[in-house]
Amino acid sequence: MARVYNFSAGPAVLPEEVLAEAASEMLDYRGSGMSVMEMSHRSKPFGEIIENAEADLRELVGIPENYRVLFLQGGASQQFAAVPMNLMRNRVADYIITGAWAKKAFKEAKIYGDARVIASSEDETFSYIPDCSDLDVSPDADYVYICENNTIYGTKFHTLPNTKGKDLVADVSSCFLSEPVDITKYGVMYGGAQKNIGPAGVVISIIREDLITDDVLEGTPTMLKWKTQADANSLYNTPPAYGIYICGKVFKWLKDQGGLEAMQKRNQEKAALLYDFLDASKLFRGTVRKADRSLMNVPFVTGDADLDAAFVAEAKAAGLENLKGHRSVGGMRASIYNAMPRAGVEALVAFMDKFEQAHS
Amino acid sequence: MARVYNFSAGPAVLPEEVLAEAASEMLDYRGSGMSVMEMSHRSKPFGEIIENAEADLRELVGIPENYRVLFLQGGASQQFAAVPMNLMRNRVADYIITGAWAKKAFKEAKIYGDARVIASSEDETFSYIPDCSDLDVSPDADYVYICENNTIYGTKFHTLPNTKGKDLVADVSSCFLSEPVDITKYGVMYGGAQKNIGPAGVVISIIREDLITDDVLEGTPTMLKWKTQADANSLYNTPPAYGIYICGKVFKWLKDQGGLEAMQKRNQEKAALLYDFLDASKLFRGTVRKADRSLMNVPFVTGDADLDAAFVAEAKAAGLENLKGHRSVGGMRASIYNAMPRAGVEALVAFMDKFEQAHS
Ligand SMILES: Cc1ncc(COP(=O)(O)O)c(C=O)c1O
Ligand SMILES: Cc1ncc(COP(=O)(O)O)c(C=O)c1O
Ligand SMILES: [Mg+2]
Ligand SMILES: [Mg+2]
Ligand SMILES: [Mg+2]
Ligand SMILES: [Mg+2]
Repeated sequence: MARVYNFSAGPAVLPEEVLAEAASEMLDYRGSGMSVMEMSHRSKPFGEIIENAEADLRELVGIPENYRVLFLQGGASQQFAAVPMNLMRNRVADYIITGAWAKKAFKEAKIYGDARVIASSEDETFSYIPDCSDLDVSPDADYVYICENNTIYGTKFHTLPNTKGKDLVADVSSCFLSEPVDITKYGVMYGGAQKNIGPAGVVISIIREDLITDDVLEGTPTMLKWKTQADANSLYNTPPAYGIYICGKVFKWLKDQGGLEAMQKRNQEKAALLYDFLDASKLFRGTVRKADRSLMNVPFVTGDADLDAAFVAEAKAAGLENLKGHRSVGGMRASIYNAMPRAGVEALVAFMDKFEQAHS
Repeated sequence: MARVYNFSAGPAVLPEEVLAEAASEMLDYRGSGMSVMEMSHRSKPFGEIIENAEADLRELVGIPENYRVLFLQGGASQQFAAVPMNLMRNRVADYIITGAWAKKAFKEAKIYGDARVIASSEDETFSYIPDCSDLDVSPDADYVYICENNTIYGTKFHTLPNTKGKDLVADVSSCFLSEPVDITKYGVMYGGAQKNIGPAGVVISIIREDLITDDVLEGTPTMLKWKTQADANSLYNTPPAYGIYICGKVFKWLKDQGGLEAMQKRNQEKAALLYDFLDASKLFRGTVRKADRSLMNVPFVTGDADLDAAFVAEAKAAGLENLKGHRSVGGMRASIYNAMPRAGVEALVAFMDKFEQAHS
């Protein structure tokens, strides 16, 4: 067994300890005589798995009692519809467009009401985060929406927008649990698990209680109504049980690592290794305004598409996988989520250095 | 490691060989250096996994080219909404109510249009399948809906209803791949994977191509529109990748067992062991009209709630798990899906025999 360093943007690297433990429990979860995949979601052992997962997540993030944690299906893409369906009472919402995912969420919201763009960085290929300190927030907006970390373009909101009192809804798919957050600044924070938390097929939505109501748009499917799952503690129907089990293991792993403050420190150090190299390099450069750089997704280019392709291919041969940039932007992208060890980033930087020397 | 016999109705027993293989590939899928959980859904190895899964399913069932296979999220419960949203052009649909799941699907359809009950077995606690040879099918019905195997009540349509030319939509969650089927009799056949096929979090919908269109109800979320995933070969967004991978292994396992004809024979033999015992027993009896008995879910009672509870507890102590009936009906239920070995049913029958002798 030889593990590679996997820089995939998602599904992405998971802690090796988590995978090893899951493998060892595959045929017999802790004396239950069955796999977690085979367990009734109404059984006692699974009840403990999902309750512990929620408790550990609450502890890690410091989620107050007036926020609910929902384990859902359908990916972040399905929340793009659930957000307006659950929140658009006035049929107005303000979107800040900082990349492809914010734009998709915006387009979906337009199906349901008057979704407005109040800021965008599309003019410079989403390479920065617009100043959101004094935006024209719609007086009747039901919420203000952001994609907090832009997986494709590698930007991050380091300061949350001034929503002028409106509820903030944030897609945190690619920065979930990468650093401490103050949940009380959000109305809704949600993200797909498949980047920083677990396998694809689980979405976690953390929602302030008063936003979970029966007052949803007409025609909202029962399964997309947050209240359905909130009332049933995420067990209205069969949940993505095995995925939740893996998420729970990752939460325990994060606690063992020292929690979100420790992860932030480690993530800052890992990202600095790579950004410092990019800044000093004559061959490579980062594509994002420095102040807005993501700690999780680091896009870079040589400026020469053939050289980029050669780099990706040679890196792969050296055990550094999935460094190709998103098909919509090209170049390279290194996703260095929580589970990417520092040694992986060191190996990448060393490889880039070698490549640069060979091509100068 | 001691495996129990797991009679859970779902999530349910999986083939031990499948689990063992998954465990062995957990940290390094066939030399890729990563787990399937960590793989980009756009990567070559995952592309092969999902393509092979679909190809094997097509071969097993004999799915003609004019039917699409979609791997979806949200459980069968989400298809309860997707069905009317995608099909209700006239806003009329006919439902045959044979249990709790058909009823839930019916209630969901009422959100979207005029869903009508054209037959029901609710008068006798869903213990039989109504005669559906000459129903009052609505002339303008967009489809006729059934739940083909009723997981809770243990009935099965052994003859499909005469839909008088309307498209048949069937929830086959609890009888998927348990016997050969003629897909051409269905417009849509769908089911959650977590009973006969794989882990929770994957729904498979097999849909005749002409029913997959852009002409869906206004307000249909992009993710619930079948065309979204059909156009993207189930990769519009991140799919429940690990679940699909396990489903693929189960399809290979089914082929190794001899395919659906062999499974049908084996399932008939397993069910006969149990039904013959019930029919001869003085203590236990089945609750379903004989002609409508399911091969997959076998509910039975003693007629005495205390004795039922004692039976379930003693069976559990003997390694026969999850025999408690659904909370809505009580008594016992043995789910004996494809992956339940004959030895498990034999052990159950032997235990029932012993219990009967001790209590007579
Ligand atoms: C920030 C962000 N939002 C949404 C999505 C879409 O997520 P999903 O594939 O789970 O629908 C992604 C996927 O990469 C993402 O990075
Ligand atoms: C026949 C049938 N349909 C639908 C469902 C609901 O499935 P899900 O939990 O995947 O939404 C079940 C679950 O047990 C079922 O047995
Ligand atoms: Mg983006
Ligand atoms: Mg540089
Ligand atoms: Mg039923
Ligand atoms: Mg009897």
